[in-house]
Amino acid sequence: MAPVGPRSGDAIFANVERVNAELFTLTYGATVRQLLTDLEEVEEVNKQLDQMGYNIGIRLIDEFLAKSNVTRCVDFRETAEVIAKVGFKMFLGVTATVSNWDADGTCCSIILEDNPLVDFVELPDTCQGLYYCNILSGVIRGALEMVSMKTEVTWIRDVLRGDDAYELQVKLLKQVPEEYPYKDDE
Amino acid sequence: MAPVGPRSGDAIFANVERVNAELFTLTYGATVRQLLTDLEEVEEVNKQLDQMGYNIGIRLIDEFLAKSNVTRCVDFRETAEVIAKVGFKMFLGVTATVSNWDADGTCCSIILEDNPLVDFVELPDTCQGLYYCNILSGVIRGALEMVSMKTEVTWIRDVLRGDDAYELQVKLLKQVPEEYPYKDDE
Repeated sequence: MAPVGPRSGDAIFANVERVNAELFTLTYGATVRQLLTDLEEVEEVNKQLDQMGYNIGIRLIDEFLAKSNVTRCVDFRETAEVIAKVGFKMFLGVTATVSNWDADGTCCSIILEDNPLVDFVELPDTCQGLYYCNILSGVIRGALEMVSMKTEVTWIRDVLRGDDAYELQVKLLKQVPEEYPYKDDE
Repeated sequence: MAPVGPRSGDAIFANVERVNAELFTLTYGATVRQLLTDLEEVEEVNKQLDQMGYNIGIRLIDEFLAKSNVTRCVDFRETAEVIAKVGFKMFLGVTATVSNWDADGTCCSIILEDNPLVDFVELPDTCQGLYYCNILSGVIRGALEMVSMKTEVTWIRDVLRGDDAYELQVKLLKQVPEEYPYKDDE
């Protein structure tokens, strides 16, 4: 069989099962609100959202690999581009850009042009320390861990906190080379 | 301007902003799991999911009315049909059917043919009392309350609990006639 190239995020997104974005946004909002009620501490909510995202990411990577035809990326630079261009498009229907690379290509920023998680959201004064979209950082961290990349993902800018964009810093901490029990062309 | 008729659920769903259904499913699953951890009691989780749904429903109704062109239903029978045929399609992309009407037309069942909330879900033995999809009953209850219908929504059948379908009973408790400060044709 001829090898199949990776598919564009748009093409994948057009063909996967989808649900109404507003339902998703409101469901996520209800979750955050519930966590704020149950856990009280904003710091604890940040942690839980990240953990929830991690649990989602370690499963979502399967769907990603199955639907995108993306194979191993040659380096972390390519990985970041694939997350921004294919991953965000495929799951949230939005595009992201990669920038602010460090010299050795192990740390960059993913900048969201649009963020469906935050439609209609305004943080009350009592939640100023909240990283409302912290689930996203967890998803990236979890998904990358399943393809042998240990990363640290942190928010650099957040519109809900008064910044002019959503910027996630993704830092590669450790990469475990994958060992395949079979040859690539088998 | 000529009056605009209600749009089909399919037509609306094709045009609204959407996100990947698997992301939604996993996010909902992570939420339920988190509630189980935080609240410990399954009964309490059922209540919170219903309350979250209610909070979503009272907002989602605006999107529904804005996008669907549905106007006032003549009776509760029509309301139930609209929820099943337009509402479920518009938000979850699935179709539902209405059946099991009582004699006076104030109680019926909405039966889901497909339920994107439960993909990949299996309840462990410790969660047997959980109504995993309880958010849905809350959404319906909240949305209907915003159009002056007080309802009770309960699960009659649940595949996760061993039944052969997802069946929600919707019972109209009280209908407050809406008073309009203007005439319909203004």
